[in-house]
Amino acid sequence: MADTAIGAPGMIPRGLAGVVVTDTEIGDVRGREGFYHYRQYSATDLAERRTFEDVWALLIDGTLDPLADDVAPLRHIPAAVGKVLPDIAAAGDDPMSALRAALAVAGLEAGVRPLYDTDPPARRRDAILLCAQTPTLLAALYRLQRGLEPVAPRDDLAHVANYLYMVTGTEPAPEAARAVEQYMISTVDHGFNASTFTARVIASTGADLFSCIGGALGALSGPLHGGAPSRALDLLDAIGSADRADSYLRERVLAGERIMGFGHAVYRTEDPRSRLLKGIARSLGGDLVDLAVAVEQRVVDVLAELKPGRELYANVEYYAGVVMHLCGLPREMFTPTFAASRVVGWCANVLEQAVDSKIIRPAARYVGPAAPQPVPLR
Amino acid sequence: MADTAIGAPGMIPRGLAGVVVTDTEIGDVRGREGFYHYRQYSATDLAERRTFEDVWALLIDGTLDPLADDVAPLRHIPAAVGKVLPDIAAAGDDPMSALRAALAVAGLEAGVRPLYDTDPPARRRDAILLCAQTPTLLAALYRLQRGLEPVAPRDDLAHVANYLYMVTGTEPAPEAARAVEQYMISTVDHGFNASTFTARVIASTGADLFSCIGGALGALSGPLHGGAPSRALDLLDAIGSADRADSYLRERVLAGERIMGFGHAVYRTEDPRSRLLKGIARSLGGDLVDLAVAVEQRVVDVLAELKPGRELYANVEYYAGVVMHLCGLPREMFTPTFAASRVVGWCANVLEQAVDSKIIRPAARYVGPAAPQPVPLR
Repeated sequence: MADTAIGAPGMIPRGLAGVVVTDTEIGDVRGREGFYHYRQYSATDLAERRTFEDVWALLIDGTLDPLADDVAPLRHIPAAVGKVLPDIAAAGDDPMSALRAALAVAGLEAGVRPLYDTDPPARRRDAILLCAQTPTLLAALYRLQRGLEPVAPRDDLAHVANYLYMVTGTEPAPEAARAVEQYMISTVDHGFNASTFTARVIASTGADLFSCIGGALGALSGPLHGGAPSRALDLLDAIGSADRADSYLRERVLAGERIMGFGHAVYRTEDPRSRLLKGIARSLGGDLVDLAVAVEQRVVDVLAELKPGRELYANVEYYAGVVMHLCGLPREMFTPTFAASRVVGWCANVLEQAVDSKIIRPAARYVGPAAPQPVPLR
Repeated sequence: MADTAIGAPGMIPRGLAGVVVTDTEIGDVRGREGFYHYRQYSATDLAERRTFEDVWALLIDGTLDPLADDVAPLRHIPAAVGKVLPDIAAAGDDPMSALRAALAVAGLEAGVRPLYDTDPPARRRDAILLCAQTPTLLAALYRLQRGLEPVAPRDDLAHVANYLYMVTGTEPAPEAARAVEQYMISTVDHGFNASTFTARVIASTGADLFSCIGGALGALSGPLHGGAPSRALDLLDAIGSADRADSYLRERVLAGERIMGFGHAVYRTEDPRSRLLKGIARSLGGDLVDLAVAVEQRVVDVLAELKPGRELYANVEYYAGVVMHLCGLPREMFTPTFAASRVVGWCANVLEQAVDSKIIRPAARYVGPAAPQPVPLR
């Protein structure tokens, strides 16, 4: 063990759960209350009452006044970035990896500036540019991967409506645009999750903003983090009808499988995002929503019976998939759409971390054979 | 503060310094002894006695037997990846961002597999492929950014000699190839540094290997981590001759500036990598080496006088820049060359993390205005 190490085995919880790394003014999750907030406002209240652009301003500038900047022109990607997208799309079909490649190129084009070499206004400009370009890159890559022409952004559309327009090529119905906007507001930030923490660790080295967000995208793509919202919808497909739910679920749980879309690292009660999205799904209506509501109750009951004391409830992924599907987003774009909103929270966290000059560098405990042993010559 | 948070302010050290996150069998740094090791062997002894390929095998497979795989064919990048490199190079000249983009494309081409969906042999194959391709991508991007044709890898050359050949277009002298090989062996791993930790946080979400390494590259690019080896050489340029060192250094330190290449997060005595690299530099010889040795002593003395008790010594960056310069590597390639060796350590850490199913997710303490406050309607 490193001779400067602290924390006897068992003293620091596995995975650093609950260990306070930093102060923040961006927001918090209160797991036992089933409540989370962005700055001083309930996140779900913001989703009910405000636009994505308002919340974007709240996270980046700390105020609900809309962004003073005209962000619509920033959505248009420069020619040098556009030129590389077809070859990225041709290399493979994973949308999160393609976005990581494209954002690294966008960073190259914008100019790579270590956080510690920039002033707050320059960092803020980079953050707004990156958030504005992410949906355009995602939509273009999605279409290119399917042999379709990218659709240029429309400056007269709001941020989320324009995103749906660029993905589908059709202006979305107002209720669909608003439903996805509410989903995206509700996923802008969520405490000190793994991708946000990743972004802050990278920021603590003084690296540039695009490096921080690239790392966060990688973390979000993991199935234990943001990489699984389509799996909840796959569950509903597999069950098919509510009367088959019980036998299907018991079989899966008794085989030791996880039921996707249920349980959360912090919430010990209903996930407030799930409550919000269930309401949105109900307002959209239809057979899939009826099935989802019926299955949700069956899952909660079966898990309470077979895994007593675990307090497993629907998480954000469960109804998110239903809402996105009903609004015309294909399953491959569920995690990327999550990324298109969460990028705002990551940027806010990077801007906050950038004023701290202390690198985040924990320790490991060496448990291998004693060292040094003699190195044999070849 | 999240209601599950532990760690009162002041209890957890800033930046998690010394906080033990995990067990590891890969290696350790003993800061007070000035010693570090890979598995059971002294890292500097390995640099003295073995090849890069041997140490690569030690990190990935746990044995000094050379990699059973024939890695030379893996250095050749697939056509789909090669096709995108000119456009990445044209977008901007930052080598680490260009490598992040290129490795994301290489991951797309290889097939993106979440760690939790793969078995250990498949993960190991991905790791060896990624380590084999990184030098080729770096060298090709470097040449393309300067309007030069990439140089194809030569299967008859060892890993590090081939890297130098691909960068410069000329087969390196044996002593230059061995000097850079020793540098690269000495930087393959180094305890739980920020980029290694980043890779493990991303791995803990179950993301794919290329996502983990992309995040680590971002962290390494930060000036507080690996992003500054050329700055130590810039210092020698600025001083010019040993008799000017004292006045230059006093002026800088009294102005509150950091002297690049000195001081380390963990070492409280001489950095063993600096000792190794100083010996290598001396064996290469020349005016620059004489200047570096003289200036090192002046910096240590001036810092001991002006910053008593801080125990600041030359770190890995100081002589690394001298050695790489003397072996024909341009300054822009100092941090990328660091990445080309450290990628092996990152991969070993990701493979180790992949068998742990616990996500790394610490907490933050909310210190903003009390929430919730009513959200005003627009």
